Amino acid sequence: MSVPVTGPVLVVGSGLLGASIGLALRRAGVDVYLSDRDPAVLAEAIARGAGAAWDADVDVELIVVAVPPESAGEVMADVAARGEVTVTDVTSVKSSPLAAAVTAGADPRRIVGGHPMAGREISGPAAARRDLFDDRPWVVTPLPESEPERVQQVIDLAMTCGAVPFVMDPSEHDRAVALTSHAPQLISSLLAARLLDADDLSVSVSGQGLRDMTRIAESNPTLWREILAANASSVADVLEAFSVDLEHVVEDLRDGGGPVVFRALERGNAGRDRVPGKHGDAATSYEVVTAIVKDEPGELASLFVAAGELGVNLEDVRIDHVLGRPSGLIELSVRPEVSRRLREGLVSLGFDVRD
Amino acid sequence: MSVPVTGPVLVVGSGLLGASIGLALRRAGVDVYLSDRDPAVLAEAIARGAGAAWDADVDVELIVVAVPPESAGEVMADVAARGEVTVTDVTSVKSSPLAAAVTAGADPRRIVGGHPMAGREISGPAAARRDLFDDRPWVVTPLPESEPERVQQVIDLAMTCGAVPFVMDPSEHDRAVALTSHAPQLISSLLAARLLDADDLSVSVSGQGLRDMTRIAESNPTLWREILAANASSVADVLEAFSVDLEHVVEDLRDGGGPVVFRALERGNAGRDRVPGKHGDAATSYEVVTAIVKDEPGELASLFVAAGELGVNLEDVRIDHVLGRPSGLIELSVRPEVSRRLREGLVSLGFDVRD
Repeated sequence: MSVPVTGPVLVVGSGLLGASIGLALRRAGVDVYLSDRDPAVLAEAIARGAGAAWDADVDVELIVVAVPPESAGEVMADVAARGEVTVTDVTSVKSSPLAAAVTAGADPRRIVGGHPMAGREISGPAAARRDLFDDRPWVVTPLPESEPERVQQVIDLAMTCGAVPFVMDPSEHDRAVALTSHAPQLISSLLAARLLDADDLSVSVSGQGLRDMTRIAESNPTLWREILAANASSVADVLEAFSVDLEHVVEDLRDGGGPVVFRALERGNAGRDRVPGKHGDAATSYEVVTAIVKDEPGELASLFVAAGELGVNLEDVRIDHVLGRPSGLIELSVRPEVSRRLREGLVSLGFDVRD
Repeated sequence: MSVPVTGPVLVVGSGLLGASIGLALRRAGVDVYLSDRDPAVLAEAIARGAGAAWDADVDVELIVVAVPPESAGEVMADVAARGEVTVTDVTSVKSSPLAAAVTAGADPRRIVGGHPMAGREISGPAAARRDLFDDRPWVVTPLPESEPERVQQVIDLAMTCGAVPFVMDPSEHDRAVALTSHAPQLISSLLAARLLDADDLSVSVSGQGLRDMTRIAESNPTLWREILAANASSVADVLEAFSVDLEHVVEDLRDGGGPVVFRALERGNAGRDRVPGKHGDAATSYEVVTAIVKDEPGELASLFVAAGELGVNLEDVRIDHVLGRPSGLIELSVRPEVSRRLREGLVSLGFDVRD
């Protein structure tokens, strides 16, 4: 970890993200003040050790606005007016709240957007964790006018919280998340919605592919409507481009399914290769060792214990599901240099390892 | 398991599926004969114990045609002409090979289609497994003319191989797999292909949702072009309906993102609820217990051992990935009645269990 951000830091909004930032900064020894318009939320965040109640007489170096997206711009402008302080936020869409802050009178030289890519669909300070941001991306989005030392402060904030900073401009960020998060959300929801017209028997013969493709369709509609509305035009751009590709594929299928379909599948392979962490990062591709275990308590453990005794770290685990229940088919992803050791070790220990 | 199918059974085509059917039938004591136009493939299937070389003098009760989709219809007609035998196949699309068989002169009363939903993207008898079909769906697709006792023979075949039979008519099957497998494949490929235009930084800030949505984009283009071409019109129907929904969402986003987007997200929730095995089958919804472990050999094992000692069977495991490498965040899916025992047990054993 680099030099901690210089405190004290004021966190405005003490919900999941605000309180987690407080806890992460406190872990690094940084002084933190908290505020929230709901006294009960503030009290809980303080009780959890996320910081002290804000005292208007205290000078702070940095203010983190951690309020819901629709009010982030106004609150940023409001707190920026208090003095020569740097102001950042944590909303998952960047252009519109930053523009709103400037429109509301904030000095753009002291405003730097932020998007810590962490958190789950639980809210409130009770769910806050000091390690919420550890090893997570934290996108830092300066305005063109943002002063470099202010940008550095927000980068330091991200790193002090344990995150990995990525600097982008706000519209670049919004296009990126439209592509990698917001458009996929709608595509998953629309695909899952197609199942509503199908009969039970048809849906019963689906497999792992459909389960993967519809997992994020479980997302909260109220939360996601807000996110999508805040980034509506970038998301529409991605979906339109996708829709054009889709039409070409449908036309080709109407002609019997030939070159366009094949090309789409090939391009899909190439695009998938760009996804970070699909089986490891760019530098590491994992190998998969497949084994069968009985679907009983302790059986899976015996496999993991064996892997541990062989000195092999498991990077990922996948349990195959059949007919709505888990099978005993377990895929273990490991670094290539240890896959042979794991495979041979498991075989010699009597495990049923598949080719 | 019910009464085994009456043998001897002839399996025409001794690749992955054919040899696996041979092994599964042999496991149940059924006599199996094998053929393949490639003598080396036949020899390997025989060497693996999948059956004996076919002798034209032997009378068989049932012939399973396990050849590539493009020749399945012709081969079915060819073998059906040999006598009063029942003929089935294993292709993943049903209408076109069955129609081709009848067009080529097969007696439709003795033809019953089949689709064992198992197998991976490995081919050849070396990859064959006697347990390949265990607990998997095996869709049985009679023609309107198929004689009931022939349909029963194919159901018995599926059950003897360890599979769970589902009876559908061929076009119903093809519409079902278009919805639950073929259209999702193209949607995943097209979404992944969209990433080809993005810069590295944009792709680097993606998360688990994108990984899930693009996993099946890794599929083999040659194999999938064949599957999609054989079911082109049903797949086009699903994609067109999806495309109409998508256009409505894009229009709504262009208006700022409101009611249509919200409704799509809500319908996505409802559709996802119909997916079998999403967290268990219709009867069982699993609960998730989340814990943090160190990313080191043996650490994951200690968690599984603890679960085993608590008498808790793990139904599913998910390792969260951050920045392309696994984090120590592990989600354990268990039956609701044991989730509290697991949670409290892990806490008392000193594990870091999240809310």
